Amino acid sequence: MSSEFERVDGERVYEGTIFEVWRERFRHADGEEAVRETVRHPGAVGMVAHDDEVVWLVRQPRESVGIGDLLEIPAGKLDEEGEDPLDTAKRELAEEIGKAAETWELLHEFFTSPGFTDERFFLFLATDLSDRHAQAEEDERIEIVPWPLARLHDAIAACHDAKSLIGLLLLAQRVSS
Amino acid sequence: MSSEFERVDGERVYEGTIFEVWRERFRHADGEEAVRETVRHPGAVGMVAHDDEVVWLVRQPRESVGIGDLLEIPAGKLDEEGEDPLDTAKRELAEEIGKAAETWELLHEFFTSPGFTDERFFLFLATDLSDRHAQAEEDERIEIVPWPLARLHDAIAACHDAKSLIGLLLLAQRVSS
Repeated sequence: MSSEFERVDGERVYEGTIFEVWRERFRHADGEEAVRETVRHPGAVGMVAHDDEVVWLVRQPRESVGIGDLLEIPAGKLDEEGEDPLDTAKRELAEEIGKAAETWELLHEFFTSPGFTDERFFLFLATDLSDRHAQAEEDERIEIVPWPLARLHDAIAACHDAKSLIGLLLLAQRVSS
Repeated sequence: MSSEFERVDGERVYEGTIFEVWRERFRHADGEEAVRETVRHPGAVGMVAHDDEVVWLVRQPRESVGIGDLLEIPAGKLDEEGEDPLDTAKRELAEEIGKAAETWELLHEFFTSPGFTDERFFLFLATDLSDRHAQAEEDERIEIVPWPLARLHDAIAACHDAKSLIGLLLLAQRVSS
């Protein structure tokens, strides 16, 4: 079964503020062609930031899914210019929850929904935390939620955001091992 | 901190084959307005299908992210008409890996990337498996991968697809408990 393909051609069919939509044609090694519509996204980072007592979560309105207080890990988009994901993570950790971290580790990389978007997600573990002044961007309404590590499984049950579930499940593996 | 908002107005700015893009204005309780671009997606299902020996995974080309053999759980989109997610799951399990399941359990529901898409994902546990004739849709090139449960953590390390990571991590919690 062949898994090789090449891009034949494509056009940008929508240019938005955060993402673009491209319609492209691909040709597989056996000659069969496939057309794909892709949401091109700059990529994003999320931070599993914890100390001995709590993991730092946020609640924020997500207008696109109609929810006023979705429980998530702190996260943010990469700059369009191809910012280093670790730099984004450091900036967003300070902006969203007012923390800096001495120790950083890349936990995992993944695609959020590879059937229709190229959004790539970099998930970091951030520890040895210290306080910074939180400064949310003007259109962010973020409630900071220090969630007790002892109730980590309750956070997983209450979480309905993919990146945050992956982060909390990976944290649970480490805490229990 | 208020988390209430209402949709003021909006327009469809792109109509694709699988998704639409909407540009909408929302007003928060304090009067502040926010504009959001949302990829409206019909939603999807994924199946953690396992027996005593293996969890059934697939490898398939994902042209949108440029990868020829992304390791994933079997999955599929809901029909546009608002199909019952369990019906979708049963259909896709047969189509993608040629299996039927006697026992179904909804493991979790989540949004894949709630900052820009309303795609909602229904994750099912499928057990008590029996054989069916696999019949992939014509544009799907799926390699069926029976992955040994004893090496489940290797699958997690090798997986870079959000839905599949969540499914495998939830399975790992159950297998180890």
